[in-house]
Amino acid sequence: MNTQRHPHVTAAATAADFLIASRQCEIRNLEHFLRMGRLVQSVGNLVHGLQRERGATNLFLGSGCQRFARQRDLVLKQNEQLASIFREALADIQHDLTDHPVSSPLLGHIAGALHCLDQLPEMRRRVAEQSASVADATDWYCDTIHKLITVVFEAAETVAEPSIAGLLVAMVHVMNGKEYCGQERATGSAGFSSGQFDSALSRRMMHLVEAQERCFEVFVNFAHEESLGLWQTLRAHPRELEIERMRQKAVSVGRFKTLDEGLADHWFHLMTERMDDLKKIEDSIESAFHHRCVERYTEARRTLAHQETLLASLEQRSSPATPVLVVCDNGVDARTVDAWAGDGVGQQAGRSIFDLVQAQTRRLRQMSEELQSAKEALEDRRIQEKAVLLLMEHRNISNDEAHRLLRKLAMDQGKRLPEVARALMSMSAVIGNQAAGLKSCRGTR
Amino acid sequence: MNTQRHPHVTAAATAADFLIASRQCEIRNLEHFLRMGRLVQSVGNLVHGLQRERGATNLFLGSGCQRFARQRDLVLKQNEQLASIFREALADIQHDLTDHPVSSPLLGHIAGALHCLDQLPEMRRRVAEQSASVADATDWYCDTIHKLITVVFEAAETVAEPSIAGLLVAMVHVMNGKEYCGQERATGSAGFSSGQFDSALSRRMMHLVEAQERCFEVFVNFAHEESLGLWQTLRAHPRELEIERMRQKAVSVGRFKTLDEGLADHWFHLMTERMDDLKKIEDSIESAFHHRCVERYTEARRTLAHQETLLASLEQRSSPATPVLVVCDNGVDARTVDAWAGDGVGQQAGRSIFDLVQAQTRRLRQMSEELQSAKEALEDRRIQEKAVLLLMEHRNISNDEAHRLLRKLAMDQGKRLPEVARALMSMSAVIGNQAAGLKSCRGTR
Repeated sequence: MNTQRHPHVTAAATAADFLIASRQCEIRNLEHFLRMGRLVQSVGNLVHGLQRERGATNLFLGSGCQRFARQRDLVLKQNEQLASIFREALADIQHDLTDHPVSSPLLGHIAGALHCLDQLPEMRRRVAEQSASVADATDWYCDTIHKLITVVFEAAETVAEPSIAGLLVAMVHVMNGKEYCGQERATGSAGFSSGQFDSALSRRMMHLVEAQERCFEVFVNFAHEESLGLWQTLRAHPRELEIERMRQKAVSVGRFKTLDEGLADHWFHLMTERMDDLKKIEDSIESAFHHRCVERYTEARRTLAHQETLLASLEQRSSPATPVLVVCDNGVDARTVDAWAGDGVGQQAGRSIFDLVQAQTRRLRQMSEELQSAKEALEDRRIQEKAVLLLMEHRNISNDEAHRLLRKLAMDQGKRLPEVARALMSMSAVIGNQAAGLKSCRGTR
Repeated sequence: MNTQRHPHVTAAATAADFLIASRQCEIRNLEHFLRMGRLVQSVGNLVHGLQRERGATNLFLGSGCQRFARQRDLVLKQNEQLASIFREALADIQHDLTDHPVSSPLLGHIAGALHCLDQLPEMRRRVAEQSASVADATDWYCDTIHKLITVVFEAAETVAEPSIAGLLVAMVHVMNGKEYCGQERATGSAGFSSGQFDSALSRRMMHLVEAQERCFEVFVNFAHEESLGLWQTLRAHPRELEIERMRQKAVSVGRFKTLDEGLADHWFHLMTERMDDLKKIEDSIESAFHHRCVERYTEARRTLAHQETLLASLEQRSSPATPVLVVCDNGVDARTVDAWAGDGVGQQAGRSIFDLVQAQTRRLRQMSEELQSAKEALEDRRIQEKAVLLLMEHRNISNDEAHRLLRKLAMDQGKRLPEVARALMSMSAVIGNQAAGLKSCRGTR
């Protein structure tokens, strides 16, 4: 709050200073996201590990603790490792985030995720003692995974570079889709192993399939070439058809028909393979994210050096014989320069700075436009989550039912889901905002 | 990009660390906006000064440099002072902004504004030599003022605290409305002093009146009590009725009727008073902004200290006899705590951190919801500006005509202006995006 902190600041700020500062600011942001990439990667790995642990735990509890103990122990050990890598990535970025003024929500959500993870030993103890039910354990894992994915979601919110933001939007949606896939695996396992799907279980399956599809649709819109290729390979895999047939059984077999219990293992195996393939897509996005950050960083540093040289040469224009270099990055229109040709030689320097300023302004405007679609995809997701929480609280219904109700409203009105969600939220003050606020805090438990 | 920068970071990041970091991050952001307040104030003062200079310059040139020379010299001197205060405020905040990773657009727009200001001496010289026409001078002042207001607009974009963002949204819209008022003063002066309004001049008057009204509507939605009171006083002032009557003359008197030229001075005087009153509203918002920042800053520091004490006491729970203090800021629901009562004494610490984490998550979510309306108001404004530029380029029409066309489209379709603007922008790829991009850079000259 005092101005003494930067004694090297000159009293007169110039256009050139701020042109350079704008570039430096972009560079710092890119450095920040290079570090952030490691965090996103560690979250993806930990989520995948916890999904495996959830699967192994359900099998273990489902078998009355008779089977899968060794496989589960192995997963637990691997996850210890993944959790500590996650905590290290966090420790590395903590101060960086605290200095990053828009990170307050991200930091808050990290605290939430860490708090969940702190309960992991206790949850495992209860599983070992069989004092936790399959439902208890599943709920806990779902909640923790949701909180971890939220960290990536919040990280994506803070990106200002369109191509990088797009990759994080793709990442969040694959993560979310894969998590729905994991929940579908658990739901299907419960049905197939008990030999039947009651209507609640069938509806849950349908909801999870639809929710996955919506996530993957958004992913496809923001995916880069390689991850899109992996996605198409996954879709074309014969396994998909098998899964589809088993899904049909799950949603069409009612309370009074029974299924071969041997299907449970097969289902679990198919869905596990599918999730592993989805993880490969995540890894491909992560790698593209890293490369894109490095590429943009190198590019930004080069442009900055270039601009600094140019501006220095403009300041030294004491020798009028030196031709002034007019460099316009991003292909600035030569006609802009021509239009000023009548102003005389004395205006040369003014013109070049003018061109640089214009080019930067235009570039920033274009970036903000490109960023818009990524921001909208995130905002769509956020508003839908809020609307679901509102419906859950207001009508006292489950998450699944709230999703279904939202879909029905959209279908009836011929509108997109986010539109209906937005309309609902705008009426939240009328239909009980306070209740919704309360639920939004406890509803995710 | 290396992790050695913060050797004091412990390897294991805890939920409590991140809870504290989230608060610290908010505090830094508030400090940043305390500094930003000074910049906003200096922009407001400089814009007001340049509006006065534009008025004085037009009168001076309009009188064939016979009158108003002394008044103009006085304004020029005052503006030298205001411009250097603006540059000082910029120099003070420059490093702060460069560290603030979302500031790249703001810094770019500051460079643009400074570059305009650098041309001020040259423009004044041309006025003194009478080598600049009234239209040249007016265009230059309008462009410079527009660029200065854009700085405040971009600053408003970076705020994460809803009540502070709301005040900046109110500020930007008063500034914009006041500038339209200034342009109306110039347009009216041109008409009244020439004794007639042709249809182009009348249409321009109508456009400027409508544009003002739209700005003030948004201002009213975000204004705090005091500025709203000042606004109502302004609206109830007898001057408003006089201005309204003169506006009627301006839009209804055609090419072949003539007006008393003495009206010009009266019009100029009335509009100047009105602008001075609008400046008082700006000052009132600025003062509220400052107080709100200080208030929120003090509050945030107190909460942080409180949480640090609490978390320290939770960590020292070696003595089980010490009662654990459960503090839930923002009125966390006591039932949340009760719901955990069955978990045994060993869970006390876990519970309290849980409450703090939940309270922070909920608070952040609520803040993001409240922030939404401020962000939307800014986004509405941005998209309308873009749509106007698109229409100007695509149909090769003036700014006024583009505004009128946009209004007509909205009226015909029974939609709000931002909706029509959004629909237009979504079609920009079809109707010539590149051309629009080019125009967006040169169209503001």
